[in-house]
Amino acid sequence: MSDNNRLTRRQLLAGAAAASLGTIALSASRAKETGKWDHEADILVVGSGVGASTAAVTAHENGDAVLVVEKAPILGGTSDKSAGVLWIPNNFTLKAKGIADKKEDCLKYMARYSYPETYNADSPNLGLSESEHALLEASYDNASNAIDFLREKKALNVAEWRMFALDRSATDYLDHVAENKVPTGRALGPVKDDGSMGFGADMMAQLGAALRERNIPTLLGHRAMRLVKNDEGRVVGLEAESAGSVVSLRARKAVVFATGGYVHNPEFVAKYQRNRLYGSCAMPWSTGDFINIAGAGGARLGNMGSAWRTQIILEEALQSSKLAAGVFFPPGDSMLQVNRHGVRAVNENRNYNDRTEAHGIYDASQAEFPNQLLFMIYDQRTAEGFAGAYPLPKTPTGAAHVLSGDTLGSLTESIQKRLNEISSSTGGLSLAPDFSENLKSTIDRFNGFARSGNDADFHRGDAAYDSEWYMVFSPMAADTKWPKNDNPSITMHPLSDKGPYYAMMLAAGCLDTSGGPVIDASARVLNTEDEPIPGLYGAGNCIASPSREAYWGAGHTLGLSLTFGYIAANAAHREPRDDA
Amino acid sequence: MSDNNRLTRRQLLAGAAAASLGTIALSASRAKETGKWDHEADILVVGSGVGASTAAVTAHENGDAVLVVEKAPILGGTSDKSAGVLWIPNNFTLKAKGIADKKEDCLKYMARYSYPETYNADSPNLGLSESEHALLEASYDNASNAIDFLREKKALNVAEWRMFALDRSATDYLDHVAENKVPTGRALGPVKDDGSMGFGADMMAQLGAALRERNIPTLLGHRAMRLVKNDEGRVVGLEAESAGSVVSLRARKAVVFATGGYVHNPEFVAKYQRNRLYGSCAMPWSTGDFINIAGAGGARLGNMGSAWRTQIILEEALQSSKLAAGVFFPPGDSMLQVNRHGVRAVNENRNYNDRTEAHGIYDASQAEFPNQLLFMIYDQRTAEGFAGAYPLPKTPTGAAHVLSGDTLGSLTESIQKRLNEISSSTGGLSLAPDFSENLKSTIDRFNGFARSGNDADFHRGDAAYDSEWYMVFSPMAADTKWPKNDNPSITMHPLSDKGPYYAMMLAAGCLDTSGGPVIDASARVLNTEDEPIPGLYGAGNCIASPSREAYWGAGHTLGLSLTFGYIAANAAHREPRDDA
Repeated sequence: MSDNNRLTRRQLLAGAAAASLGTIALSASRAKETGKWDHEADILVVGSGVGASTAAVTAHENGDAVLVVEKAPILGGTSDKSAGVLWIPNNFTLKAKGIADKKEDCLKYMARYSYPETYNADSPNLGLSESEHALLEASYDNASNAIDFLREKKALNVAEWRMFALDRSATDYLDHVAENKVPTGRALGPVKDDGSMGFGADMMAQLGAALRERNIPTLLGHRAMRLVKNDEGRVVGLEAESAGSVVSLRARKAVVFATGGYVHNPEFVAKYQRNRLYGSCAMPWSTGDFINIAGAGGARLGNMGSAWRTQIILEEALQSSKLAAGVFFPPGDSMLQVNRHGVRAVNENRNYNDRTEAHGIYDASQAEFPNQLLFMIYDQRTAEGFAGAYPLPKTPTGAAHVLSGDTLGSLTESIQKRLNEISSSTGGLSLAPDFSENLKSTIDRFNGFARSGNDADFHRGDAAYDSEWYMVFSPMAADTKWPKNDNPSITMHPLSDKGPYYAMMLAAGCLDTSGGPVIDASARVLNTEDEPIPGLYGAGNCIASPSREAYWGAGHTLGLSLTFGYIAANAAHREPRDDA
Repeated sequence: MSDNNRLTRRQLLAGAAAASLGTIALSASRAKETGKWDHEADILVVGSGVGASTAAVTAHENGDAVLVVEKAPILGGTSDKSAGVLWIPNNFTLKAKGIADKKEDCLKYMARYSYPETYNADSPNLGLSESEHALLEASYDNASNAIDFLREKKALNVAEWRMFALDRSATDYLDHVAENKVPTGRALGPVKDDGSMGFGADMMAQLGAALRERNIPTLLGHRAMRLVKNDEGRVVGLEAESAGSVVSLRARKAVVFATGGYVHNPEFVAKYQRNRLYGSCAMPWSTGDFINIAGAGGARLGNMGSAWRTQIILEEALQSSKLAAGVFFPPGDSMLQVNRHGVRAVNENRNYNDRTEAHGIYDASQAEFPNQLLFMIYDQRTAEGFAGAYPLPKTPTGAAHVLSGDTLGSLTESIQKRLNEISSSTGGLSLAPDFSENLKSTIDRFNGFARSGNDADFHRGDAAYDSEWYMVFSPMAADTKWPKNDNPSITMHPLSDKGPYYAMMLAAGCLDTSGGPVIDASARVLNTEDEPIPGLYGAGNCIASPSREAYWGAGHTLGLSLTFGYIAANAAHREPRDDA
């Protein structure tokens, strides 16, 4: 019986970081050994991002005693460094404008985007399985209610999110399919005290205040280690590690995990991702602890190979895989991206999640990933005209990751030289012998597209998304001497036939991963038989996302996390209270 | 304590198929309840394909008492309907010819093919993690020994596998990379009594005889349901279901699973595969039972999204997803494959596993999979000149899945008409408006490649694999009036500028899936902490393949399965014997 405890002590001696994650029987728990729990609550909420905070506030308002358990020394999770946008269909701002975001229509958009190969408007469940459809339904049914609830309880003040300087309703990430009947206006953002729109830190400051005002206790620096299950298989608590000691936490009703993905666990990334992920802007505590904890508790894992993808600057990621930001939108109009063969591989203005999938395309003939790195190529117009729009530095060569050359030939040499220097980090990746020749014809072809306004290869600029988000992320420098783009599409301008030319190396990265234990429409974690594990709930990046690989619009991850945090707290409220 | 048993009885009443799969404590087992085990052995082997049979013979020869447990009413698994080829590096036939298949070189080939993004000849472990590298090493170190062992024990008679009528050493599936130093001759095949080369059924007949000669007991129609673990967490037995009753099976040393993948479990396919798999030639019992059984026992799952892929005929799969065969190699030279936009997407002569990945390519701009179906387009020359080479029928329109038209325009109409008829099975897939126009220019471009012998887009025919396996799978009909191909590449011939034209619809399918519980280099199943679950071993399609997604050469799956069955039996032999 005490085997588990002995193991824990030994592992704690060896260093707390090595302590194993899993699930144990109540009879083998620390609470049993010591005869008491260190802390007790009705509902334990693990994590403190937007999903966890929403769950905690909701549970408190339902009358449940809540305890928040956070591994990091600070509250807020990755939500805190996000833009703070929430994708909420049928939200109050749409209603106020008289825009009907009907359930029937919105489910079609979600299903079409998340399940492109099986979506069928005329089939039962739109061509999806019952459980897949139920998760989409739960997303729609609860998102707007969750927001209204938080507003009513004065836990979160939000308004329509406007596209920064552009100041218009946000355009969805797949606005141009027939199934999207409300392609703008589903994004909300936090309102600051002065009435202006805030970022993630402002949203989390509000939710943090809501926790404090409600006197919801919060344990920082407590790393969830093990679920505690009673003889009936019900989750009745959690053991956490804090400063090398085991702390036992009782959950009379339920444990809700709303923690991060696994992107900062290199072993998990190697194990679960088909393609390399070089870095992420998730908080460093996103190490996927819930995977082993719930896995050992019998949870089924799903969606393990997926992530909320974004391109990132390769050399920033080689410095540290924990990034400040991704290349959410590459700026510049006289700019294109090519692969190691010097050919384009993707619409450079597509949203980050879809665009980054291009890095994973497999070349069957060569048995390789030719887009493992993409090279963003641009001229002096883009370097100066859009200076300062990340990742372009303020001056053309003002960052170590900028490569340059007076001609395309010398630029090619610069790229290959840099690739040689970092060869041990890229699996020896090099430019193909045809790179230089193809680059010239690729640029010629792109320049033709820029002049005609028609990208026949990748449809850059065709969708409203492409040109509207271009205006957000690719502003021209205020004092630039370069003229505005007078070509038919504002996102494309011919590259100059004279140097200098510049290049940056882009790789696949992510906001965070989006796989983990599978939940049902009540946010209950399912076991390998697809039955709920009693007392265990999940929301946020730590679970298999209800949207699969699709990113429905700005604020997708936060919106889903908030919604399922709300669902989890309400479902957990209905659990029997274990007072034994 | 008896909760688990009650559940079992209830579920058995509801129908044996619904009985849950998992892991239970010895204290809750049927053996405990009845006071005895129904059968006892040192090593239980679950499954009876090449991996399981090898494990059983090896264990027997090691002096362990073995019991084989098979769900199907027949022995042999999917191995029985395979070609019976075994990919065995450094095998005795290579040695006899004086060909050195050195470990150092062979590991580079394996690593390059399985891990193209991280492979690095100059890095420790070739750029792989220690555990990834150890699995490749175990494959190389044991494959040849396993075969020599089975030959010496007269359990299996094999010889160099020759390419059918072509009668030459088999070419590997990635022969043209510098890392492959022995690109031909690693494939072995079963020798029949008359000295000729046999198929999978012949191989399994030999191994079946080996089991009988050794009096190794075999339970048919016994479906593994639950692992039985003792208090120390060691696997000490198994509960199986047979004709509605629970049968308890003791394993004094270990349980070795060498069962099938999960391809015939539609829920698992939907849950774990990113792209649709329309059908498989795996035996119908490949429903992935081991995933829930081991998952509930704490195993870590890996590689869940992968499969041994092959194109299949869509309409055959819509009749039944349990297929006789896949389109391992599409026959014909005046033949190409296009997607719904009428453009080529892949080298049509690449090996089935790599080629089929093209179906999964994602179009970021349209958020869809444009190659979900590929249309194999050909003319009268291919229809008649290669008649009878699967999937071409004996007469041009002699199969329901052949579509035809006098012109490319009427062929396009035939395709769209058929797509409309089956729309509810394909997520409403239709030809894009630009299909017809693009098809014409695609054929023109292909015809140019055929005349020059140089496929500038996909390198069809460039690698030895392409042209040599072409000769195997694409023989001209004996009595054809059509002349031999006198163009520079035997695999490409211009399509006629006159109809009739034909089309078949191809979709992604597989031999079986290749994900499941993760094993170590001793074939021990690992838990979520990457520690072995004592007494539990795995081999074959039921585990996360040691080769990840790569298919090293003809006989890849059987060769790996045999090798790890051998490893598992030898490692299990060294387990402590539980006589308690």
